[in-house]
Amino acid sequence: MYSIAEYEIGIPAEGIILRSDLMQIAMIQDKIVPAKELEPVYFDRGMFFGDGVYEVMRSYNGKIFALEEHLQRFAGSMSAIEIIGVAIELIRSRILKAFDAAGFANAKIYFHVTRGSEPRDRIWDAGLQPNFFLTVSELAENAEEKAKGITVSTHPDWRWKRCDIKSLNLLANVLASNDAARKGCGEAILVNEEGLITEGAGSAFFAVRGQTLQTAPLTANILPSITRDFAIKAGSSIGLEIVEKSLAPPLAADSDELFIAVTTRDIVPVVKFDETSIGDGKPGKYTKLLAQEFLSFTI
Amino acid sequence: MYSIAEYEIGIPAEGIILRSDLMQIAMIQDKIVPAKELEPVYFDRGMFFGDGVYEVMRSYNGKIFALEEHLQRFAGSMSAIEIIGVAIELIRSRILKAFDAAGFANAKIYFHVTRGSEPRDRIWDAGLQPNFFLTVSELAENAEEKAKGITVSTHPDWRWKRCDIKSLNLLANVLASNDAARKGCGEAILVNEEGLITEGAGSAFFAVRGQTLQTAPLTANILPSITRDFAIKAGSSIGLEIVEKSLAPPLAADSDELFIAVTTRDIVPVVKFDETSIGDGKPGKYTKLLAQEFLSFTI
Repeated sequence: MYSIAEYEIGIPAEGIILRSDLMQIAMIQDKIVPAKELEPVYFDRGMFFGDGVYEVMRSYNGKIFALEEHLQRFAGSMSAIEIIGVAIELIRSRILKAFDAAGFANAKIYFHVTRGSEPRDRIWDAGLQPNFFLTVSELAENAEEKAKGITVSTHPDWRWKRCDIKSLNLLANVLASNDAARKGCGEAILVNEEGLITEGAGSAFFAVRGQTLQTAPLTANILPSITRDFAIKAGSSIGLEIVEKSLAPPLAADSDELFIAVTTRDIVPVVKFDETSIGDGKPGKYTKLLAQEFLSFTI
Repeated sequence: MYSIAEYEIGIPAEGIILRSDLMQIAMIQDKIVPAKELEPVYFDRGMFFGDGVYEVMRSYNGKIFALEEHLQRFAGSMSAIEIIGVAIELIRSRILKAFDAAGFANAKIYFHVTRGSEPRDRIWDAGLQPNFFLTVSELAENAEEKAKGITVSTHPDWRWKRCDIKSLNLLANVLASNDAARKGCGEAILVNEEGLITEGAGSAFFAVRGQTLQTAPLTANILPSITRDFAIKAGSSIGLEIVEKSLAPPLAADSDELFIAVTTRDIVPVVKFDETSIGDGKPGKYTKLLAQEFLSFTI
């Protein structure tokens, strides 16, 4: 068991600093503890408010894919929620250090930065030290979902209005994903109040219609997905015309091919949309070509 | 420093259970640690996704106000996000135990329940044990804001579409609150895409217009505020007609009186709305009467 005193985290090892003299007691499950003796993680604003931003990256054969793109987006997320003073160079070096230490050729790297730890208050302290947390795990290829494709189900898009920020406020995504899983589906496709598809709960969503590749345009309610960018690049490479325009579910269900794009799974064919089989119910030819092209970028 | 082994929290003291055999390493600030040796709180879904719900209560002179109403709402929040198996009787007994232990006559009690700790995955494990965390702190009355009133500023309502659920996804509230604080205001008033006021970032919002007391109706995007209920009851008691209808900012700015209602601050007069002074720039007569009436409920 590690104690917080062993970490260099910008917060005194003796515990959380209370902004007022009002003593606090805390309770974890059924045990009462003095708040001052708890590790700062218990007072992390990431827990109280989701007051932080994150990234998920992966490596292919020992090489992290699109590291700089992810770092650039992460810098944008931090800036958007006004977490300041965290150098991207520091984040990069920590990622590389952890990736090296893990030694997985195909790794999933998750990390978040939260605004810091302090007694719960919506108004943050200007001098707060952000917290950094990262995990590296081995990524198993799911060859079956690529070969057979997945089914997807629609769900109302309950997310907040700043989905361009990759924040820790993901409960809407969680609820939609679990609704889909219960239905035996591999992804939830989110539909906004205007009846248009925004994106998947954890992915970008694409339709192939004739010679076109269609996906929603980037707006304040769409994550600027890095895999989306590469999917578009791959689509262009194989000769598809790119159309950035939102799809309504009936149009999606009526498409020749569908797929999702997501960092940890790259390009995954969709063979059923709610109750409608897509094409002949097998991964489409353009999707397969595009997935091959995509993989060529990762080498 | 307490170790997790000292708590009874339904998760083996030896650490987090990985759902797969894929080994994980973690990094906290710049230190690498085996994920298995970290305390479960580091893998709390509350941190990763805001996958939890919370309540804030207060006591007046040694008596918790509206305990049962808060517990009932909390049960509704848990049910809405499908956290099951947490008995309200258990929550009640923990609250009372902690409140007694703290010994504050005027206490603020915060608690949350998250879905539990596990390696990050949007799809939750059905057998996960929820985590409970609570703090009690002494509540200092802010007599000045009640005597002089506060100023408020408007902010776009960026919150998710299920604000009827009191979840840990509060980044939109945090950003709006800090925007208001920077402007020297005591609360942010949220305005939705239709140009209507929903509520405050951490409060219900009321206008007195003539003999009427107006506030937004309860919908999927309004928290069923308990203080709101009591403010409405107090308004009725002093002879105001209750109108549950959303206000646009120009109508709010043109009101005779404004106030916010929130558990930890009860009724707080609003004397300036963005750039517009309300009434004579001092707390209004009905607001004062209503605040007195409200306090009579807390005895």
